[in-house]
Formats: sequence, structure tokens, C-alpha cells
Amino acid sequence: MKIDGRPYRTIWLADDGWSVEIIDQTRLPHDFAIARLTTVEEAAHAIRAMLVRGAPLIGATAAYGMALAAREAPDDQSLSRASDRLLATRPTAVNLRWALERMRRRLAELAPADRAVAAYAEAAALCDEDAAFNESIGTHGADLIRQAARKAGGRVVNVLTHCNAGWLATVDWGTALSPIYKAFEEGIRLHVWVDETRPRNQGASLTAWELNHHGVPHTVVVDNVGGHLMQHGMVDLCITGTDRTTASGDVCNKIGTYLKALAAHDNGVPFYVALPSPTIDWTIDDGVRQIPIEQREGSEVSALTGRTADGRIETVTITPEGSPVANYAFDVTPARLVTGLITERGVCPASREGLLSLFPAS
Amino acid sequence: MKIDGRPYRTIWLADDGWSVEIIDQTRLPHDFAIARLTTVEEAAHAIRAMLVRGAPLIGATAAYGMALAAREAPDDQSLSRASDRLLATRPTAVNLRWALERMRRRLAELAPADRAVAAYAEAAALCDEDAAFNESIGTHGADLIRQAARKAGGRVVNVLTHCNAGWLATVDWGTALSPIYKAFEEGIRLHVWVDETRPRNQGASLTAWELNHHGVPHTVVVDNVGGHLMQHGMVDLCITGTDRTTASGDVCNKIGTYLKALAAHDNGVPFYVALPSPTIDWTIDDGVRQIPIEQREGSEVSALTGRTADGRIETVTITPEGSPVANYAFDVTPARLVTGLITERGVCPASREGLLSLFPAS
Repeated sequence: MKIDGRPYRTIWLADDGWSVEIIDQTRLPHDFAIARLTTVEEAAHAIRAMLVRGAPLIGATAAYGMALAAREAPDDQSLSRASDRLLATRPTAVNLRWALERMRRRLAELAPADRAVAAYAEAAALCDEDAAFNESIGTHGADLIRQAARKAGGRVVNVLTHCNAGWLATVDWGTALSPIYKAFEEGIRLHVWVDETRPRNQGASLTAWELNHHGVPHTVVVDNVGGHLMQHGMVDLCITGTDRTTASGDVCNKIGTYLKALAAHDNGVPFYVALPSPTIDWTIDDGVRQIPIEQREGSEVSALTGRTADGRIETVTITPEGSPVANYAFDVTPARLVTGLITERGVCPASREGLLSLFPAS
Repeated sequence: MKIDGRPYRTIWLADDGWSVEIIDQTRLPHDFAIARLTTVEEAAHAIRAMLVRGAPLIGATAAYGMALAAREAPDDQSLSRASDRLLATRPTAVNLRWALERMRRRLAELAPADRAVAAYAEAAALCDEDAAFNESIGTHGADLIRQAARKAGGRVVNVLTHCNAGWLATVDWGTALSPIYKAFEEGIRLHVWVDETRPRNQGASLTAWELNHHGVPHTVVVDNVGGHLMQHGMVDLCITGTDRTTASGDVCNKIGTYLKALAAHDNGVPFYVALPSPTIDWTIDDGVRQIPIEQREGSEVSALTGRTADGRIETVTITPEGSPVANYAFDVTPARLVTGLITERGVCPASREGLLSLFPAS
């Protein structure tokens, strides 16, 4: 999508034709910086240190990491080592494993001398496919925003989102934000309520940043506000992303998503979840019981980074000394609270039947 | 309550016998500082700038503000101006109006020359009553925690609270935390989940601080976490405070309270609200429609203050430049989501009938 009028993706081949460039997301929203990856080590570091984040973008970065590895040493043993190295960065990310397996399958069938070229082509194809999937999600989701606009009768349509499921989390377009970009480009008058999404503030840091630079009207609110907004008719629909979707339509997403779904349900506000089909876990039914919830470092809760009045970047601790903190990273929104799932193949009810109607072979 | 073993209130007469001392709560949890109020202006500033906060403590500070005003100029016109000045500081808190009306009624019946002494006595009486009311709330609320402890069969009882309705929000004991202090002193094994309570972080800054210094086991979580905890049986009951309670039992409290009440309802977790009867607004029935919600400075959302690794106190901005923010300070939890109201006269259903059963003369 655009940054101040200029189109960007989150990852691309540099002008030298072989190194890989990414937006260093650890420096957003205070600083826009591009990082260059020249080795598989640097690609692994970018994933581990969260210069890139978001399941689809992690997969894309790993794919290019394999291309960098193949350029350096295309033999089986070196590639196997490179793949293990990349996989170890975020061992729970489903897309990471999926992207690495796809790259290894493709390269295994080729002679070592042909692997580097093929690896770059495969990584580029994977990126293009991610962007295409997400653009389709946008097209289908924009229908829902258009319907809300008709219902609003000329009034600005208000969409609430949680966390960052925007283009920064993917190669391009995003998942939850893709319908918003499509509707915006179509000229629908809309406004986005952006949950700041504690503890890592991906809403305030990333979603607000990308909407701002693309020119989409938005307002940042703390995570506590959504219920009040919905009680007062200030939200027409909610759209969030998901990290894992069960076969029955339960949605595991950033912590706090469940609370917004409850508020939407209580106030008759439609609550949609946008996802590319690779996030569906067909082996799991009951999200609350079956999905293990990652607990992360307490320092994400107790400390925050921002810029001082004179422009320095500082990290400050906000909790009292001696008070313990806990940091649960995700929660599960039961399918009964989800109005519909927006996928690359269309919108369906959040249920096994709904998902099978779009993905019958699964 | 106690700070590292030494008993404190939040407001008291200074040793000089006329100026008023408070704990400057804007400097917690990083710094414990006492501020001195010598004029009605300073009292108004302390309320507006939130050196004191929490409905009961706002009322107590306003009462002492009237005493300072009466000491300076006890004529009707000056007192009327002082009262208007204090009333304008915070629009939502019903205790503020109640305390000011009580002071004005008391002073109106006296000759100007007798007003200063009477005002100090009345403010002191109001403070003592608040502490006594809150202690009663604690006694009644501790019954509920004791019941939960019996049900938990020896396991630690988990209580979730939002914002700060502790002794720092009142003259002493607190409202929501008073039952917790009573149960703790009785020896009931309990643990408190403390919502950090963005944007001003009164949970992380104040609730965690006062529990920590009194010795009560607790854990700070971001506001997004409560739903997940309740889904997994990790909360036995919720207790929050309220800034205004309607005659029908709707509860207006810190933004985000409604979301926790929804989660409690969805998971069968009892959700109690603790209040001294002065926070009941008998003139209002429908909280969502009738209570105006204060909107505060966006800077409370976009910037945060904490301590750096080397001990400096710094304020950092966390939102992108150019992204607007909105800051709604309260929301309304409909009575249907409230299991019971804990008052100084006992626990009652959140309904007109419930409230009238305890306060029949109202």
C-alpha cells in the first residue's frame, strides 16, 4: 500500500538484484527505516527480533532467507541448515514452517547450480500469492463495508479493528485492513477506530501508522473504549484478523479480541474476522479448550518505548517496583460471536458448514 | 490503609491546623510525594489535574476546598464562586456535587464569621463518614469473598478489579478493594488480577502500588486479558467501583468496566460493584442514555510517563505523529450485567427494588 503516496510492499528485492529489503518495523511509528538482508543469518535475525512480524510476512521473509542461503551455498546440507536456522526463530508460527517446506520442496527437485535462481523466483511467487490472497479478502470484505455505507445513508461508516492485521503484517494489503483499503479506494466515506492493542501497541504503532500514511481517516483509542463506542452507535462493523481459526470457526487472535466480540454481540454490531485460508486449522474444533495460549515476557507489559519531547527514543517502566505482571498474548473468540469469516474465496458463516462451503476439499 | 506498615489516609489536615495535605497521586507509582493545599484554587487544581482522583476522594477534597474558601472569604458570593469553581473540575463524579451541596447547606445556615470553623468540622466529618462507609462496604463484601473461598475449597481465590477503587480513591479503605483488604486481614488466601486501566493506568500505577505496599498478592495484566482469564476459570469474582450508579442499578465507571462485565456474564463469573450510597444518582434511570461521558485530553492516550532504566522520570509519546486520538473516560455497565451492589448497608441486587430495600427513604 502507500506511504505518503508512494507504493510499498513490506519486503522486496533490492536494486542490486539479489539482496532483500524490508521495513524495519521495530522502529515504527517513530522512524521509517529500511533494512537490507544479505545473508540467511540476517533474515533469521529480522524474524527473531521482529523487524518483520505478522504470520504471512514471517513466511515471506523466511522464503527470501532460503533464497539468500541458496545463493551462498546451494548444496543439500547447507540448505537444510539454513531452513533449521529460520524455523527456530519463531517455532510456533504456522506460516513459517509452511513457507520453508514449500521452498525446500521446490529446491530439492533441482540441481544445486539451478537452485539460487529458482529460490528467488519461488520466494517472489510466494509474496505475489500472499498479496493476491489478501487483495481478494479486500474485495469480498469491501462488499460488507459498502452494505454498511448504504445502511448509514451517506453518513461516514465507522469500522473498529484490533491489533495490526494491515499490510505491514503481510506482503501487501493486509487481512483485516484490506477491505478497508478497498472501500477507501472505491471512495466510500469511512473512519477506522484503532484499538491501541496493549501490551505491544500494534494498533497504535502500526495500524495507525499505515492508515495515516495511506490517508485513511482513523482515530486511536485505548482497548477499553470499544464497548462504549458500540453502545452509542459509533461502530458500524468490526473487522479483525486471526492467527488461527478452528474448523468450527473459533478464532484465536490478539488478546482482547474476545472482549470486542462480546461488545459487538451485545449491541448488534456485526463482527467479522478476515483470514487467508492457510490460517484455518482443520484439526481443531474447540478453540478455548484446544489452542494453547502463548505467555510472553512480562517486560512487554511493564515497559513501553516511545519518543520524548526532544525526539529521543526511550523505554520507560510503568508498573510499580515489586508488582508481578502476566502477559497472555492471545485469546479465543467463540464462533457464536463471529458474524462471518472473510476469506480469499468469499464471506462465510463462522462454522464448519460455512468453511466447508468455501473450502470443500478440506 | 498501610504503606509498608504505616497507616495513612489520602487527605488530612496539616500540622499547621488549617492547610490540607494529600498524596500527589500523579507521581505514583514511581514517587511517593505529599502535596499541600492552601487555597480553593489549589484544591480545584488538585482535582482537575488528578493529584486526587476517585469519586469519594474528589468529594472530600472539594469539601476541604470549601473550608479553605470559607477561611479566606466566608461571604455568600465568595462561597458560591468557590463552589462553582470546584464543581467545574470533573463533570461525571456525582460525589463532587453531593459534597459541595452538603457543605453549602451547612454553611448557609451560619453567620459568615462562624463558617470557617464549621466548614473544617464538616469536611472532617465527611472524611470520617467516607472511611466508615467504606469499611462497612469491606465487611459486607468480604462475605462474598469468604463464600468464594469456601467454593474454591482451599484454593487461592482470584478477584479481578478494574481501575483504582482502592483506599487511594477514597479517604480510606477504598470501595472495590475494601472487601479485599478485609478478607486479606481475615486470613483468606486471595490473589488480585489488576487491570492496568489505560489510558491513565490507575490499575498498574495505583491499585498495584497500594496492594503491593499493603502486602496483598496481585498480578498486573493489560486490560485485554480479563476475558481470557474468565474463559479459563482463573477469576472467581470481579469487584469494581463506580463513579455514578443510577436508581435502576446501572453503573458508570472507568472506561472498560463494561467489557469486563460482559466477559463475566458470558462465563458465569459474579460481577459485583462496590459503592458508598452517595454515588447513587436517584434522578437517573438509564445510564447509557442519561449519563454524559467525559472526554479527556488525547495526550493521556498518546503519551505515557514512566521511569527509565537509570531512574529518570520521562514522558514518551507512543502514537504516530498525525494520528488523532480520542479519550472517553467512562462507560456504563447496564444493571443486567451486575450480580450485586456492595453498599455500606449490605449487598443488594442491581435494581431499583434492590437499592430501595437498603435505602427505603430515597
